[in-house]
Amino acid sequence: MKAQNVFLRIAYRGTNYRGWQVQPNLPTVQGEIEKAYFSISGEKITLHGSGRTDAGVHATAQTATFLTQASIPVHKIAVALNSVLPKDIVIRGAYPVKSDFHARFSALGKTYEYKIYYGQKRDPFLESLYWHYPFAFDVNAISSGLILLKGKHDFKAFQSTGSFVEHTERTIHDIKLEIEENKKILSIEVTGDGFLYNMVRILVGTLMDIGGNKREPSCILAAYDLKERALLGQTAPSEGLYLKRVYYSSR
Amino acid sequence: MKAQNVFLRIAYRGTNYRGWQVQPNLPTVQGEIEKAYFSISGEKITLHGSGRTDAGVHATAQTATFLTQASIPVHKIAVALNSVLPKDIVIRGAYPVKSDFHARFSALGKTYEYKIYYGQKRDPFLESLYWHYPFAFDVNAISSGLILLKGKHDFKAFQSTGSFVEHTERTIHDIKLEIEENKKILSIEVTGDGFLYNMVRILVGTLMDIGGNKREPSCILAAYDLKERALLGQTAPSEGLYLKRVYYSSR
Repeated sequence: MKAQNVFLRIAYRGTNYRGWQVQPNLPTVQGEIEKAYFSISGEKITLHGSGRTDAGVHATAQTATFLTQASIPVHKIAVALNSVLPKDIVIRGAYPVKSDFHARFSALGKTYEYKIYYGQKRDPFLESLYWHYPFAFDVNAISSGLILLKGKHDFKAFQSTGSFVEHTERTIHDIKLEIEENKKILSIEVTGDGFLYNMVRILVGTLMDIGGNKREPSCILAAYDLKERALLGQTAPSEGLYLKRVYYSSR
Repeated sequence: MKAQNVFLRIAYRGTNYRGWQVQPNLPTVQGEIEKAYFSISGEKITLHGSGRTDAGVHATAQTATFLTQASIPVHKIAVALNSVLPKDIVIRGAYPVKSDFHARFSALGKTYEYKIYYGQKRDPFLESLYWHYPFAFDVNAISSGLILLKGKHDFKAFQSTGSFVEHTERTIHDIKLEIEENKKILSIEVTGDGFLYNMVRILVGTLMDIGGNKREPSCILAAYDLKERALLGQTAPSEGLYLKRVYYSSR
């Protein structure tokens, strides 16, 4: 029987998971979906995500592909998986794709959103869904840093130390900041052709350090030049980060 | 040393607690706050809430009072408690009150909100914060039931069987329904002079049964008359319920 390649769009609240990627004896999103597919089909699959997300990181539209020989029709996979998955993981859609389509290698770019709650007091309902940042900041300073990030740059400094990636040039197609003053929510949405490990969290942490007057916007230019992580600001915590969209030319 | 009576306003996400009231060896909101106060002051207090909330029920403004002889200034209690409380419980304010003021006995009324998410697919970010109701319903039918609830009635049928309360007459001052169509969210807000055990959840469950054509709006009138729980609809789950405000004439 010929194997069918299946594409999934997935939403999850990452709070209760040690990230996307399977790890032995730890709860992971990939692990939960592979287990759920086994329980509905009896088949052990390997699910390939568009990329890993860290512990605590959320997704509104992660993507993944897997090959299956099970007889379950593709258009029934989402409902079947959702009936057995934990409530904080939801399959938003399942579609048949060509055999050479791969959630990671076929991806052309991604959009991430980072959410910050800047109210003085904690809000128990935003806990683990927003970075709580109860300090003063200057939006104009943040914006001055933001515009320096757009475009094609060598983002080598914008990754956690200890990362080994050969090519560290990436293009940020779009980055924008939105503020909902009544809710005290600030969000930064960034779209690019690819992101290095922790790049979005370092970029957001650096922008907030600039807003808090701990760094100058020009630290970003220096980091492009000298490629040193230490020139940039803190790494924003995982809990505010959402993988929002993955782009493909076609499926 | 004279004891000081202290009033607290408290927000909590009820998901991880077995309700408000202390139970031996189980996590409860009252228990966490009493423990936190002991850790900041060394004093064992008994916290009196405006009422119990069940496991999974949330509060944006629960109220409570307690007597203390500790030397910690009242205006510093909220910050001190928040520094040791779990992140899903937040003290929104602490105020000195007269010795005869009691969070429960001095209360004149309450507002509850009940939140329903009626999208077809589950949303992992609304999980345990909304009742997921993926079925069709008729808003006009719900509204027809809603208007019958306003006013002074004997709500004896609107409590869980096995409840023993002598006086079951209550007044609902205001009850209203709001729909956010783009987010597929329906909320029902109800204000009254007091509520019987599970009254709001039975009232909401009955309204949704009316909306789903499983009950007639007139079942509410029959229940006032015959005082039988079985005439009404299902008990809505705890996860959509929020204690939103408690009213007092003065503190």
